[in-house]
Amino acid sequence: MTAAKVYTGDVEYFPSVQRIAFEGPDSDNPFAFKAYEADRVVAGKSMAEWFRFSVCYWHTFTAGGQDPFGPATRTFPWDAPSDEMAAAHERQDAAFEFFTKLGVPFYCFHDRDIAPQGATVLESESRLEQMVTRAKALQQETGMRLLWGTANLFGDPRFMNGASTNPDFTAVAHAGAQVRAALDATIALGGENYVFWGGREGYASLINTQTHRELAHMARFLGMARDYGRANGFTGTFLVEPKPMEPMKHQYDFDAQTVIGFLRHHGLDGDFKVNVEANHATLAGHAFAHELQMCTDAGLLGSIDANRGDPQNGWDTDQFPADINDALHAMIVVMRAGGLGRGGFNFDAKVRRESVEMEDLFIGHILAMDNFARALVIADRIAADGRVDDFLRDRYATFDSGPGAAFERGELTLLALRDHAVDHAVAHTSGKQEWLENIINDLMFRG
Amino acid sequence: MTAAKVYTGDVEYFPSVQRIAFEGPDSDNPFAFKAYEADRVVAGKSMAEWFRFSVCYWHTFTAGGQDPFGPATRTFPWDAPSDEMAAAHERQDAAFEFFTKLGVPFYCFHDRDIAPQGATVLESESRLEQMVTRAKALQQETGMRLLWGTANLFGDPRFMNGASTNPDFTAVAHAGAQVRAALDATIALGGENYVFWGGREGYASLINTQTHRELAHMARFLGMARDYGRANGFTGTFLVEPKPMEPMKHQYDFDAQTVIGFLRHHGLDGDFKVNVEANHATLAGHAFAHELQMCTDAGLLGSIDANRGDPQNGWDTDQFPADINDALHAMIVVMRAGGLGRGGFNFDAKVRRESVEMEDLFIGHILAMDNFARALVIADRIAADGRVDDFLRDRYATFDSGPGAAFERGELTLLALRDHAVDHAVAHTSGKQEWLENIINDLMFRG
Amino acid sequence: MTAAKVYTGDVEYFPSVQRIAFEGPDSDNPFAFKAYEADRVVAGKSMAEWFRFSVCYWHTFTAGGQDPFGPATRTFPWDAPSDEMAAAHERQDAAFEFFTKLGVPFYCFHDRDIAPQGATVLESESRLEQMVTRAKALQQETGMRLLWGTANLFGDPRFMNGASTNPDFTAVAHAGAQVRAALDATIALGGENYVFWGGREGYASLINTQTHRELAHMARFLGMARDYGRANGFTGTFLVEPKPMEPMKHQYDFDAQTVIGFLRHHGLDGDFKVNVEANHATLAGHAFAHELQMCTDAGLLGSIDANRGDPQNGWDTDQFPADINDALHAMIVVMRAGGLGRGGFNFDAKVRRESVEMEDLFIGHILAMDNFARALVIADRIAADGRVDDFLRDRYATFDSGPGAAFERGELTLLALRDHAVDHAVAHTSGKQEWLENIINDLMFRG
Amino acid sequence: MTAAKVYTGDVEYFPSVQRIAFEGPDSDNPFAFKAYEADRVVAGKSMAEWFRFSVCYWHTFTAGGQDPFGPATRTFPWDAPSDEMAAAHERQDAAFEFFTKLGVPFYCFHDRDIAPQGATVLESESRLEQMVTRAKALQQETGMRLLWGTANLFGDPRFMNGASTNPDFTAVAHAGAQVRAALDATIALGGENYVFWGGREGYASLINTQTHRELAHMARFLGMARDYGRANGFTGTFLVEPKPMEPMKHQYDFDAQTVIGFLRHHGLDGDFKVNVEANHATLAGHAFAHELQMCTDAGLLGSIDANRGDPQNGWDTDQFPADINDALHAMIVVMRAGGLGRGGFNFDAKVRRESVEMEDLFIGHILAMDNFARALVIADRIAADGRVDDFLRDRYATFDSGPGAAFERGELTLLALRDHAVDHAVAHTSGKQEWLENIINDLMFRG
Repeated sequence: MTAAKVYTGDVEYFPSVQRIAFEGPDSDNPFAFKAYEADRVVAGKSMAEWFRFSVCYWHTFTAGGQDPFGPATRTFPWDAPSDEMAAAHERQDAAFEFFTKLGVPFYCFHDRDIAPQGATVLESESRLEQMVTRAKALQQETGMRLLWGTANLFGDPRFMNGASTNPDFTAVAHAGAQVRAALDATIALGGENYVFWGGREGYASLINTQTHRELAHMARFLGMARDYGRANGFTGTFLVEPKPMEPMKHQYDFDAQTVIGFLRHHGLDGDFKVNVEANHATLAGHAFAHELQMCTDAGLLGSIDANRGDPQNGWDTDQFPADINDALHAMIVVMRAGGLGRGGFNFDAKVRRESVEMEDLFIGHILAMDNFARALVIADRIAADGRVDDFLRDRYATFDSGPGAAFERGELTLLALRDHAVDHAVAHTSGKQEWLENIINDLMFRG
Repeated sequence: MTAAKVYTGDVEYFPSVQRIAFEGPDSDNPFAFKAYEADRVVAGKSMAEWFRFSVCYWHTFTAGGQDPFGPATRTFPWDAPSDEMAAAHERQDAAFEFFTKLGVPFYCFHDRDIAPQGATVLESESRLEQMVTRAKALQQETGMRLLWGTANLFGDPRFMNGASTNPDFTAVAHAGAQVRAALDATIALGGENYVFWGGREGYASLINTQTHRELAHMARFLGMARDYGRANGFTGTFLVEPKPMEPMKHQYDFDAQTVIGFLRHHGLDGDFKVNVEANHATLAGHAFAHELQMCTDAGLLGSIDANRGDPQNGWDTDQFPADINDALHAMIVVMRAGGLGRGGFNFDAKVRRESVEMEDLFIGHILAMDNFARALVIADRIAADGRVDDFLRDRYATFDSGPGAAFERGELTLLALRDHAVDHAVAHTSGKQEWLENIINDLMFRG
Repeated sequence: MTAAKVYTGDVEYFPSVQRIAFEGPDSDNPFAFKAYEADRVVAGKSMAEWFRFSVCYWHTFTAGGQDPFGPATRTFPWDAPSDEMAAAHERQDAAFEFFTKLGVPFYCFHDRDIAPQGATVLESESRLEQMVTRAKALQQETGMRLLWGTANLFGDPRFMNGASTNPDFTAVAHAGAQVRAALDATIALGGENYVFWGGREGYASLINTQTHRELAHMARFLGMARDYGRANGFTGTFLVEPKPMEPMKHQYDFDAQTVIGFLRHHGLDGDFKVNVEANHATLAGHAFAHELQMCTDAGLLGSIDANRGDPQNGWDTDQFPADINDALHAMIVVMRAGGLGRGGFNFDAKVRRESVEMEDLFIGHILAMDNFARALVIADRIAADGRVDDFLRDRYATFDSGPGAAFERGELTLLALRDHAVDHAVAHTSGKQEWLENIINDLMFRG
Repeated sequence: MTAAKVYTGDVEYFPSVQRIAFEGPDSDNPFAFKAYEADRVVAGKSMAEWFRFSVCYWHTFTAGGQDPFGPATRTFPWDAPSDEMAAAHERQDAAFEFFTKLGVPFYCFHDRDIAPQGATVLESESRLEQMVTRAKALQQETGMRLLWGTANLFGDPRFMNGASTNPDFTAVAHAGAQVRAALDATIALGGENYVFWGGREGYASLINTQTHRELAHMARFLGMARDYGRANGFTGTFLVEPKPMEPMKHQYDFDAQTVIGFLRHHGLDGDFKVNVEANHATLAGHAFAHELQMCTDAGLLGSIDANRGDPQNGWDTDQFPADINDALHAMIVVMRAGGLGRGGFNFDAKVRRESVEMEDLFIGHILAMDNFARALVIADRIAADGRVDDFLRDRYATFDSGPGAAFERGELTLLALRDHAVDHAVAHTSGKQEWLENIINDLMFRG
């Protein structure tokens, strides 16, 4: 499922790193997997199929560590050419070298990541088309695939007050232009999904905002994009990615339930699903696994942006996911859901600003892939062990037959409930949380 | 709109406090209103009509300040009788004395606030009926009205794992029994609304919970309550009150958008609206005004639990609302919505544990009522001034005609947006947040 | 180091549970250790010596699950006697049965946990003395030891406005009376430490508080307790336990650095150290390991209350510590510090309110003990591996000799720094965070 | 106390704005003060003297709205020259035009704000000296004064791992070079204070950090700066500005108490005080007024960075302070302290990214100055009213004489406390928080 061989362009950008191989748990090699073994079959599917890992273009190839208090700390060699398009070519070569050395099957990008914005809409479109043509050739050469495309509707100052929710119609039109071109690019590259992350879709202050109108515009806009995509051959899934805040004070796609409610209300849930990012979940006051569960319950889990935040920091730190517990609870949900379908695990993650060696880019990804690989194996062990699932089945058994089942089928009235209560006392039954936590911890280390 | 005269039962419980009168801004009398003047007309309605203030039974008459680290600090004289029902009678007398001395038109209660739980369902029902009969007589005597009734489905250990979302059907049945009786009580007392706050509807841990099944049960349960209420003459509004957590780690009714999505998905939004509590909003990561705005946008703002949290504390402090800014931004939304209809401003608030004088109960309510009265007057001043509303109208003017209006009507395609963008640049227009904040602050003090 | 045999009083309170044995990682027995092996030597000390595990009396034997929204869900058989002192005897028997079955060497208590408050100071003292006499006998019989004693200065309404920081001198005096008696009890029982947790030492509002005076009173009070203890033979460590809030809006002992600064400023750091609680750390916006590190840096790490909070909840959930990462990073700090000396790992933790079986009390403790045992083994593995420590040593090498060392010794002026800068550029060196995280994760699972 | 006339350089950068005048509460002029009247005497001092308002150079003249998701939205005309030093001259002219039109007496800067970094230490020093010479002339011409100077030790990548706490001594040396030059500049310009904000003094991860060594280096460094300053004629106050996090995961100067403890421990509290920033306070989990109170209690309140955060956002939003309650509670503390001495109210605040008109820069400052002016007047009204202060005095009266006073003097033993408790019961006295809140709200609107 991954590239047969390593790609390098005219320049080899990561000469010190070769194709990352699985070396097993006893290896000390920083450039080897200790747990992720692409072809290893777990619960009926290979690791590669379970995860469909994806590298994101923006953090890894376009952002060098700038933060609100300082500039970039990593100077990328591919940014050397003064001609923007020449640099874009080099960056693309570097990206495909990285993808194929790392051994992931997918990647993701915003329009502006792969093609610099032009002076006009037409020039921007032309540049994107050139880079898409080049990407297509590289995909064919390497076997790499596009997990999803998207448009950057938050960077340019024209979107400072929002894109589809901008108070100025012309800004909405420019958002439309970018989405049109990004959809074309996604279709041309066989993208499996198309993502909307509403970076500026929200407000800085309620006092200068008509939220009702902005939300109606957002729904209208998503519908128009859906119609265009479907009419032009896009058969993949549209995804909305929740985030509660940052850069805006409030963002409309606050969390999974907010997005699910919005999609259903506007009749978009047939074409749209949710792209859950771990760090956005925690910013919204939720566990990562909670957001995944809410989407699974709604049948709307589309894809995952696998990263993590810092529990003590209130902004998007976008760290590589290193926590075995977070990964494990995510994989328990994903395994029960049977996997992500056309979605995948995209690493919307960046190495720390202080991690300035080019090799650190590989190390961050290895950290994350090994972590999720371990989580998959443990989740499978828990399923095979059966105690947790048995407990859950028994816990809800009163609804499987008799009056509980009638209640589920909608056959009881409130009075019938009351009459049942008159005759029955509630059993005082332990929730056994600590016992289940014990089982999970024990199985984590029974490898 | 408020009681014509003060009620006292056999005992006068607040002998040092007389009917609270409006004395105006220069009064130093702790037992007088400085801003709330029930009959003063603002924007076409009296203050009393705008607010429909309500006192809650639980914090004010049943809870004496216990917290997880210590017992009650206020010993209520009405709790003196060893016979539970006798104490309930005295508490009811004290409550009506308090209501009528304070001069609010409404009150609210849980079933267990007014009638102690019996040993059996039947005894609990019987006790509630007795207290409702008594309440009815007191309402008739005083003119007091019931803003809403509700059932306490979180206190009894049988609900430790949830009420309508309990994994055990029998617990759901007991919840049904209580809701049936509480609905009967609400109907008998002419309650304008009936509230569901899902205190234990959520989970302590995802690992022992089937969220999908629990959420389906909750929807089924609400529908059954609605059917019972409508069949038995309840013409008021059903309300769901969001809260993100506490006591549970996660509560299903997380915030307004979650509840709105849930109600719509299950076809409940014709009968149910949202009861917004200020402190619950902030626990969910939202401003109070935000939650009100989201409900207004959805046409589902039902009623308000007016209190406040502490910005530095992560639990429900339920303080009396003293912050003019919070109240003002709430009133701006409420005024634009034309008021709360059948809803009201209920003080789901408690005096601090250290405020142990009986008189402090009055002082807390006066604090809140004066604060909201000032907010109403300032909100009206802002509307009359017009600068804020004019700014908002102008800001969205591109959608009022031409292609922006066509976009709103759904007449444009994505390609049409793109073509508009090719020919038009986005104006670089200030959001003017600081200017609007200046106007609001200036008008706040132009009284 | 642990009790030679199981103790039972007249009644066996946990008949279904025998002495908890180590059965190794493949055991499915809920009542066995999978990782904690008391006598296993790790880095020169037995596990029992590293941890000096302690059970807390209050959560496990006196609190049955009450929370602000409902009463207790666990009814303890030892609370059955209507006579308070008879119940206290039974509770003590149950506690020692529990301690010896679990196999921990230490326990902790507040005065009121073991002896019910009397109607007067004298009666309270007398009751405590009786229970201490009984505890002494049980300690001798079982070999159990007291990790620390303390006084409950937050529960009684007389302390609603604080204990040593109460605005009323008489309340301070009552706090003094309790501390005097609790110190006597701790001395009599050979307690290794004495703890001050300032549950109400803080404020509900700044507007009714003179913080300066209250903080001065707190320092005076701690000094008086120290003087009394030292004069009466207490040779152990006094400990202050930080907590940022709850029940108070703000508590003076906010976090480790606040307490360290306070102790030093008032000359108390010769006798007092810090008792770090994990959940209090996270409430203060810190990682657990951070608080431990700050105390270690100051030479003031005294003891640990090992529990955890919920990352999404803003109150003290006091859960049993189940997270391997939290435990591991704590143990890395503790191992580098060479252990806790006279301190220990006390489980200031409670099973969930829904965990209503008596057996759940054991399961919670097993969960925590196994988790820390695994963490110790992994921390030792990391130390033995050496890569992390080598990296750290190399990272600061410029301060080990030459001008860096001179800087550390205070021999350079600001101008000398400047002159060095004129001639030297800063190397652009990676912080290698992801690489270190990889090493730690790899070693975690190399068992 | 403010500039006698408006300054303009060769170009007038704000031609549409004239000197901001006080027009009183009924003015609708966006470019007039409604409350701030520089010469109005309140409690014995003019408003200008109470506040000593200061404009910060960085937000207002060097930062155009960039955030992690997009570039600047404000293009400053003074940045037009391609020559960096020429642009610095123009920026300086614009700044002094702004200062004198706004009518503030003070300003603040980092070295790099006024003089672009050079290629070498020597060039950077030379550039700073040139700009300081120019600034000196402008100060003389306009009467403007420097509230404080500081060095930017967080922007350049050489400080990515810290400045004085960098693991590499050469980076520490470069920090020293900058502080030396910035101190010289501050001395030359008659700066009243010199500030250390430790933007990168902290850690991204504990696992690659020796906190003990880094903290020792920080203390050493501050001492060297103090010695240099004092030896070279600096008679002002050194200030440390707390911030808990951002950009680092954890910053050592977490909050006021942490800084106070650090300064005292290292013997720096004779020369150093604390510069409290409102937004940093709330990020640390504290109210703004709390941090001010802690500093006042310690005698270490130096100066104020007056801004505000967003209660729902977990990063430094640096908004202009518009909340009357925050300002009022700050002014109550400041008035009781008798003012800030050599400190002032510096607006470390930026207009929103969407506020793109040059005029918005004035409007933001007017918003803040009027807000604090109102707060001062209300705080004075509360003091004159006397009820709040009387309550506080009475609340602690038991410590003013008798055994309470003996306790304060350190004349009582723990046994003496106990003996007092035996004979005295604690009065059950209300904290009256709601009554005090009522008084404050009433007086707020009694103008």
